[in-house]
Amino acid sequence: MKNTYLLKTENARRLYEDHARNLPIIDFHNHISVADIAKDRRFENLTELWLSPDPYKHRLMRICGVAEHYITGDAAPFEKFEKYCEIFPHLAGNPVYDWSRMELFRVFGIEEAPSRETARRIYDKAGEMLQSAEFSNNAILARFRVEYQSPVASITDDLSFFDGKRVAPSLRGDNLLLPTPSFLAGLGRDMSDLEDYITALTPRLDAFHRAGCRFADHALDAGFRCLADDGQNDARFVQLLKGETLSSTDSMRLSTEILKRLGGEYAKRGWALLLHLDAKRKTSPRLLELAGPAGGYAAVGGSFDSAAVCDLLGAMEAGGGLPDTVLFPLNLQDQAPLAVMQGSFSQDGIASKVQLGPAWWWCDHALGIRNTLSCIASFGVLSGFIGMTTDSRSILSFVRHDYFRRLLCSFIDEQNEQAEWEMTPAVQGELVRKICYQNAIDKIRRNEK
Amino acid sequence: MKNTYLLKTENARRLYEDHARNLPIIDFHNHISVADIAKDRRFENLTELWLSPDPYKHRLMRICGVAEHYITGDAAPFEKFEKYCEIFPHLAGNPVYDWSRMELFRVFGIEEAPSRETARRIYDKAGEMLQSAEFSNNAILARFRVEYQSPVASITDDLSFFDGKRVAPSLRGDNLLLPTPSFLAGLGRDMSDLEDYITALTPRLDAFHRAGCRFADHALDAGFRCLADDGQNDARFVQLLKGETLSSTDSMRLSTEILKRLGGEYAKRGWALLLHLDAKRKTSPRLLELAGPAGGYAAVGGSFDSAAVCDLLGAMEAGGGLPDTVLFPLNLQDQAPLAVMQGSFSQDGIASKVQLGPAWWWCDHALGIRNTLSCIASFGVLSGFIGMTTDSRSILSFVRHDYFRRLLCSFIDEQNEQAEWEMTPAVQGELVRKICYQNAIDKIRRNEK
Amino acid sequence: MKNTYLLKTENARRLYEDHARNLPIIDFHNHISVADIAKDRRFENLTELWLSPDPYKHRLMRICGVAEHYITGDAAPFEKFEKYCEIFPHLAGNPVYDWSRMELFRVFGIEEAPSRETARRIYDKAGEMLQSAEFSNNAILARFRVEYQSPVASITDDLSFFDGKRVAPSLRGDNLLLPTPSFLAGLGRDMSDLEDYITALTPRLDAFHRAGCRFADHALDAGFRCLADDGQNDARFVQLLKGETLSSTDSMRLSTEILKRLGGEYAKRGWALLLHLDAKRKTSPRLLELAGPAGGYAAVGGSFDSAAVCDLLGAMEAGGGLPDTVLFPLNLQDQAPLAVMQGSFSQDGIASKVQLGPAWWWCDHALGIRNTLSCIASFGVLSGFIGMTTDSRSILSFVRHDYFRRLLCSFIDEQNEQAEWEMTPAVQGELVRKICYQNAIDKIRRNEK
Repeated sequence: MKNTYLLKTENARRLYEDHARNLPIIDFHNHISVADIAKDRRFENLTELWLSPDPYKHRLMRICGVAEHYITGDAAPFEKFEKYCEIFPHLAGNPVYDWSRMELFRVFGIEEAPSRETARRIYDKAGEMLQSAEFSNNAILARFRVEYQSPVASITDDLSFFDGKRVAPSLRGDNLLLPTPSFLAGLGRDMSDLEDYITALTPRLDAFHRAGCRFADHALDAGFRCLADDGQNDARFVQLLKGETLSSTDSMRLSTEILKRLGGEYAKRGWALLLHLDAKRKTSPRLLELAGPAGGYAAVGGSFDSAAVCDLLGAMEAGGGLPDTVLFPLNLQDQAPLAVMQGSFSQDGIASKVQLGPAWWWCDHALGIRNTLSCIASFGVLSGFIGMTTDSRSILSFVRHDYFRRLLCSFIDEQNEQAEWEMTPAVQGELVRKICYQNAIDKIRRNEK
Repeated sequence: MKNTYLLKTENARRLYEDHARNLPIIDFHNHISVADIAKDRRFENLTELWLSPDPYKHRLMRICGVAEHYITGDAAPFEKFEKYCEIFPHLAGNPVYDWSRMELFRVFGIEEAPSRETARRIYDKAGEMLQSAEFSNNAILARFRVEYQSPVASITDDLSFFDGKRVAPSLRGDNLLLPTPSFLAGLGRDMSDLEDYITALTPRLDAFHRAGCRFADHALDAGFRCLADDGQNDARFVQLLKGETLSSTDSMRLSTEILKRLGGEYAKRGWALLLHLDAKRKTSPRLLELAGPAGGYAAVGGSFDSAAVCDLLGAMEAGGGLPDTVLFPLNLQDQAPLAVMQGSFSQDGIASKVQLGPAWWWCDHALGIRNTLSCIASFGVLSGFIGMTTDSRSILSFVRHDYFRRLLCSFIDEQNEQAEWEMTPAVQGELVRKICYQNAIDKIRRNEK
Repeated sequence: MKNTYLLKTENARRLYEDHARNLPIIDFHNHISVADIAKDRRFENLTELWLSPDPYKHRLMRICGVAEHYITGDAAPFEKFEKYCEIFPHLAGNPVYDWSRMELFRVFGIEEAPSRETARRIYDKAGEMLQSAEFSNNAILARFRVEYQSPVASITDDLSFFDGKRVAPSLRGDNLLLPTPSFLAGLGRDMSDLEDYITALTPRLDAFHRAGCRFADHALDAGFRCLADDGQNDARFVQLLKGETLSSTDSMRLSTEILKRLGGEYAKRGWALLLHLDAKRKTSPRLLELAGPAGGYAAVGGSFDSAAVCDLLGAMEAGGGLPDTVLFPLNLQDQAPLAVMQGSFSQDGIASKVQLGPAWWWCDHALGIRNTLSCIASFGVLSGFIGMTTDSRSILSFVRHDYFRRLLCSFIDEQNEQAEWEMTPAVQGELVRKICYQNAIDKIRRNEK
């Protein structure tokens, strides 16, 4: 992995070396295991660290026709590893090809590319290193200089693992929008309408805030509609309390209203709302059974209604308050219309109140990152961009920040060269710093200002 | 602002200098104030000329968190100007960054970029020049050599300000599709069905034609559907006459029918129809109150149905006639499917009867312009492209023609170099001339041929 | 036509010369006339061979305003040819410009570009050559070294023209989804439910298989929805049998179910399913009358629901079986979300089970092909890509394989250079071979392995 990787020009390399390379990492949304941090987990072998917790790699194995036995099945750890190495040379062009090499190089100093021939050598070399305490979960984390990360937690999760400084929870709110009777019973409060429900959630929201939470995320999957309040949502909530089943339209209407009210709670606390848009999680029944619901085979929904997001934010603003909002579309085509929305909501003193987030999930590759940067710059203001987050389950995925930073420095350099942005070197450097670090930390420290 | 701005190669510069630079401007759709032309308005200061009439700049101030007080509020003119200058260095990448500099340079010869440091100097220098008659509204217009422009007017507007040659009205038809009772009463005719309504509009359409009108525009906002005539539209029209309220579906069906009939009237007169597609104008309730309905914070609707446009045009063709049509999508993703439609409707002797228009509104940047050119060329025929129009409220926005021409010359040069179009220099020059000038003027002078 | 056409670098040329240029052509979906092959048709003149069977050229003539008299009307063959030559210099940027030149050069060795000046010379030169048996239908085919092609045939077509080796049928299944009473009667079987219907089709499907059929295609046009089985589809089928008319929703639900069951039949035989998505065939009523339903003026539908495709494939997998599937969107914006679906369905031992197909119809140009390659690589695995097919009615269209191969070699070279894929020359060469030839032939020979 050459140091000039993705950095074609002198100026791009200068930007990267002088401004990007050594900035601490802020990873404001991921799925890292806090239990692993708490116990400083040790890994037996490379499969356990590198392959098993990474559904992106599983997905590519499936695409290449590798039998499920070697992916989520009972094959031995090295067999699984070997299968991945065998297909590896054919993966060029997919970001996982780049990330895989970066992960091996950054953590283990392994330069050779995985292949049938190198599989055993790489496995043994890394396996030996993993025996040392220098390669424990937290020792690996320390190598990446993560200043702040925010793994997701559900509202009822134990927050004692979070130190509230380097590791703070972000609230995963999906189960709040259409609560089950047992969840409601668990809140331990008498409730008869939505206001009661929000009141019942308040102590938990406050606990999250004390644990350092500054982000809440919600998935608006394929099919989401923003249905205006028709005055019947308290009645629908009572139906839920009684364990009755709502029609699909009634469910959508009620969950829109609950999300709107939660938005007010987030705004009140100075949290940012992360909206993950347009995933289509129900795809292959076979893979659902074999790999479970988060097995890495989600698709992109079609005909997502960006106007519905706009209506939702407008309703929040007119209601209890609009939090800072970051939009994560899964469909590359939606980056442009959602980038425009940056100009549709504002707040005095807050830059980029509503903004397009970093390229998400399957879009997190050079194509998607360049399109994100290009859309934010062309349709809005690039300097307010909150920058990269991994959204990953693997502690090795922090290499993606380096991948992002290299692409960012190249993009800024190219635009200055090709489109004649005419930024001074100092302004270019400041832009890099803001996007890679400052804008995210400013959101996090917002209440302290 | 270097003369080579956006022109990287010798050939691109040659194309620009020899063919594009000195062509007169045809701006077939804008929102320039004809009252200002009639009285040859004078401007007090740069804020009044440069900032206040430009919602694009307001939008960027909001994105950067500038308080509304300095945008649409009561702050003093220089305070507003200074705030914009302060954020200016961070705007690189957005086209308004480029246009702002081009405006200052082209009209005032000011080369330095706005910033906190330069704000006062720029303001004073331009302010002094504005005291001179050489910088009146019409003197500025004369600098741009605008051969023909077509500011919008509503059907009941006074047309006496239009000279019909250099300044002709274009009809803004939005209020015709679902007329109010008072509008209908104002037409001064007994009406009992849609045919009566069209008859009642005829004298005004003829007056527009005599005043030089050759373009009519309609906005098909997010949510538009093309609903086929079910034979009940005369009855719905009678409901409107009586002041009754129509359901949303009934409104859509009636307005589709009225637009279809108006299309026939436009076709009969040789006008072109401009369809502005997929704006989402209802966004922030806060900004609606503070900045008014045209305050520069519109978003893009989602899931626009390009098939609906196709059905509408097909219905016109089968009905009273299909006018030449120019399609302006606000969603970048819709440029490709709408460019394809160029091949779906034709008329003997008319080139590019139905076509994708220039990148519109928030899409009017290098990214959008290159995508437009690329889509028209790849999916159709570039040489029939009608070229640029500003759609702007500000008389300084004519610099955007220069921005467009530079990008066009670069695009043609790049395609010849990279994709080996193998056009001769003469054909390249002719292509530039047609797109920058001839195709638009041919539409305008069509009846005279 | 230079040999370096579209090949800018040494490495791109090497890839093309060493690996792509001489590979045989596999054209797994086209509309070539097998009757012309059977009788080894002779062509009178260039209009008959080059212009009349090519709706792409007709479309561009219409866009340029050429009168329909010279397109599908009664004008003399040379008059039509001359009109096309007149507009030709203005077509640069459209792929038909490139293909037209490649066709003339590859078959007739004609290097000069069509124009008003060269029309007569080109027409006469090619016309003379066409008198020779070296330019019969099959002699021209032989020049292209087509190893396997698969023209479409309907289920009731005579299959005797197909040799099953070099020319095998592909099943065009559109009329199977909502069969007419007369079609059902023609099957000559008593039927009382859908199972009977599939049983009645089985002998024909088997006959297709014996004739070498390995592909079935279905068009899911604009407006397609995937409606889950509600248990009433047998009843709806009986309505069809009785000649009753189904509502649009009932039709959609029944045809979804039939397609699902046919998918199982295709899977059982090891055929691949080709889904052509989002065409909008009803556009201009005038052109429908003048040029017929396949006259080259189709548009792209809007708001296509890629989730519906996903649901359909999921239903097949849960039902009778999911065949290998290739997705052909007509809307450029849908290439990204559909490329993602590569990771959503898999089968042990099959690479790229579900995949985005080559850029289709109006998207089959440099822009579309680059976007296709970029999407497949970024969202999935490029090495499993099935590669090019013409989908054309003209035997000259095989030049498009050369066009595709040049773009592919350039793309791989650029990515290695720019994005640092770091593929070895050998891996690059293997990638070219797989995409241009091996992956398609592997699908075809799948049963023989």
